[in-house]
Amino acid sequence: MASDEATLMIAGSETDSDMLYDTGFLAPDPFIYVKIRGRKILMLSDLEIDRAKAQAKVHTVQSLSQYMEKAKSNGTRNPGTLDALEALLKERKVKKLLVPAHFGVATADRLRKKGFRIRVKPDPFHDSRILKTEDEIKKIIQSLRHTEAAIKKGLVPIREGKIRKGYIYHQGRRVTSEQIKNIINTDLMQNGLIGAHTIISSGEQCCEPHDEGHGPIRANATIIFDVFPRSHKTMYYADITRSFFKGVAPAHLKKMYKDIRHGQDLAMAEIRHNRKGSIADKAIRDFFEAEGYFTGLRDGRMHGFFHGTGHGLGLDVHEAPRVSRSDDVLRAGMVVTVEPGLYYPGLGGIRLEDLVVVTRTGVRNLTKFPKVFEIP
Amino acid sequence: MASDEATLMIAGSETDSDMLYDTGFLAPDPFIYVKIRGRKILMLSDLEIDRAKAQAKVHTVQSLSQYMEKAKSNGTRNPGTLDALEALLKERKVKKLLVPAHFGVATADRLRKKGFRIRVKPDPFHDSRILKTEDEIKKIIQSLRHTEAAIKKGLVPIREGKIRKGYIYHQGRRVTSEQIKNIINTDLMQNGLIGAHTIISSGEQCCEPHDEGHGPIRANATIIFDVFPRSHKTMYYADITRSFFKGVAPAHLKKMYKDIRHGQDLAMAEIRHNRKGSIADKAIRDFFEAEGYFTGLRDGRMHGFFHGTGHGLGLDVHEAPRVSRSDDVLRAGMVVTVEPGLYYPGLGGIRLEDLVVVTRTGVRNLTKFPKVFEIP
Repeated sequence: MASDEATLMIAGSETDSDMLYDTGFLAPDPFIYVKIRGRKILMLSDLEIDRAKAQAKVHTVQSLSQYMEKAKSNGTRNPGTLDALEALLKERKVKKLLVPAHFGVATADRLRKKGFRIRVKPDPFHDSRILKTEDEIKKIIQSLRHTEAAIKKGLVPIREGKIRKGYIYHQGRRVTSEQIKNIINTDLMQNGLIGAHTIISSGEQCCEPHDEGHGPIRANATIIFDVFPRSHKTMYYADITRSFFKGVAPAHLKKMYKDIRHGQDLAMAEIRHNRKGSIADKAIRDFFEAEGYFTGLRDGRMHGFFHGTGHGLGLDVHEAPRVSRSDDVLRAGMVVTVEPGLYYPGLGGIRLEDLVVVTRTGVRNLTKFPKVFEIP
Repeated sequence: MASDEATLMIAGSETDSDMLYDTGFLAPDPFIYVKIRGRKILMLSDLEIDRAKAQAKVHTVQSLSQYMEKAKSNGTRNPGTLDALEALLKERKVKKLLVPAHFGVATADRLRKKGFRIRVKPDPFHDSRILKTEDEIKKIIQSLRHTEAAIKKGLVPIREGKIRKGYIYHQGRRVTSEQIKNIINTDLMQNGLIGAHTIISSGEQCCEPHDEGHGPIRANATIIFDVFPRSHKTMYYADITRSFFKGVAPAHLKKMYKDIRHGQDLAMAEIRHNRKGSIADKAIRDFFEAEGYFTGLRDGRMHGFFHGTGHGLGLDVHEAPRVSRSDDVLRAGMVVTVEPGLYYPGLGGIRLEDLVVVTRTGVRNLTKFPKVFEIP
């Protein structure tokens, strides 16, 4: 890095986790963050400035409106946000800027026109963000424990319900995806977590891994719970998937469940510090293939194991690294999911997902929720 | 627009509302959207492709992995997402691309290197998105009604509570911001809305308009409820603010409340089709100034009315237009907030926020929640 190159981000930190990670300040609307010679500076509107002074983990908080005034006195007639930024950067003699890959092209082009040299850092923007500290792992575990407790509550109507005409009846009514989602998301909210797009799917719906599920839940069919809420206190996510079957499962689905469990174990055995995630991914794929599970397009639809084995998790639910065919190398301190699944239209879908920390010698599994397929 | 210029977006539609607006498809991870000669095309991973075929409002859904194979057979050794996109664009003879202002600079630069001409459209990306249809307004009203019902429930402990030693006691315990937020957010979640960063602040906390509030709620002090949840069914937001005072308010705070109400009425009277929002904004500012309310920096902190009068709302909680000093012109069909506030450290803060539709002749106020300051 050139000695006088400053780091620049312009984003709201509720949606941009790099911004949150670097500033420790949560705000909905875009604000300016510059790091000049190791010193972190925020530039904010009058609305946010006093709150930022109290809460942000930065060295200085500057007023956007004051720098707009400076730009005006420098001769800019109708100064905007970028003119204020320019005034600050000129004052600090900064000409080179390092920005994240997702930095907006419109702003980048305008800064280039103003004479700044823009260098783009490929993702991940923060090399440290993908390596979790003990404190971050504790926050992820907190989110995960609340999630596991919510899943337990969500299972009650399925557990207590009786099978009638292919559906599950509880307290006189058919149990639905919407009802279970409501139980889980409400319980999460009561514990300060936001469960958005929680997946409770059954039967054919399970064949689309991201189908959120709707309507009455099928008995004698696969059921997928995939819950990945974010704490709105710590802002850290959790992510867990469990699959169930209300009734007595046929032998082929029991075997599929057992094989997915085994595939998950195989992958975990291949995960450790300084190894590519693709080795774990391949372990699952090879095993599934050896067991005769077809993966690919058939009759115009995807079948088999057609997603990656896992992904990093932290301030984003999907973040680096990927545990997939990609070249990403795993390092001690990364937190990743391990989530093999098999999906066959006509049969249903099963997925199991645990959250693990990569260690020097293997993994530390953070997930405690038991893996039991059949619910009698 | 040049006749052969295609529109390009690459983003996840859970966070990028332009992507959601144009595709009608909700997905967490970035995917590719291209509009070529009026035809909408999605390019997606194997994980999402079948769900997109069923749900997306586009003409064609293409497979990312198949176009990666094409790129490979065209000679690219280790093809990535952009190589697949390039293969599609070459096949369709597209060389010029129109992208949104927030399109990632890294991708834009790489496409430029590949020989594409990139034109950036300033915000808003969709001219139609800021003009709401009747169906969109209905969805916003749905979100708003649930929000008003949740606020009513959240007020119960304050209404039923008794003042003791400067705090509000209900069922033997001090009423807290966390408790009220929990009541409101849980009620919202039960109705399919996600209330994130709900503001329940009291006393000095009210002086920071975006302070979420914490701890016991003060009696004999200002209380602000600012609730702005998103429906996870329709994906449309609502936004409303009410201010309260538990006990008998002193004359100066009662006057402040009355003046904010009057300021809000003045602004609404200045809002109509084809007028600048700044006229409404100025009406409030002039009135506050005439009434002797100081706005600006004093003793290092912001005082008075130091935010804009309002903002557009829809698939984003803050979207175009702004009702502020800016030049944004209001048009019939826009949905905007009107939310004057006054904040004085030592005294507290009061804000009132309604949601209105701009019409040819004025506004249609969507908000029904009454404006009553004192809670006995």
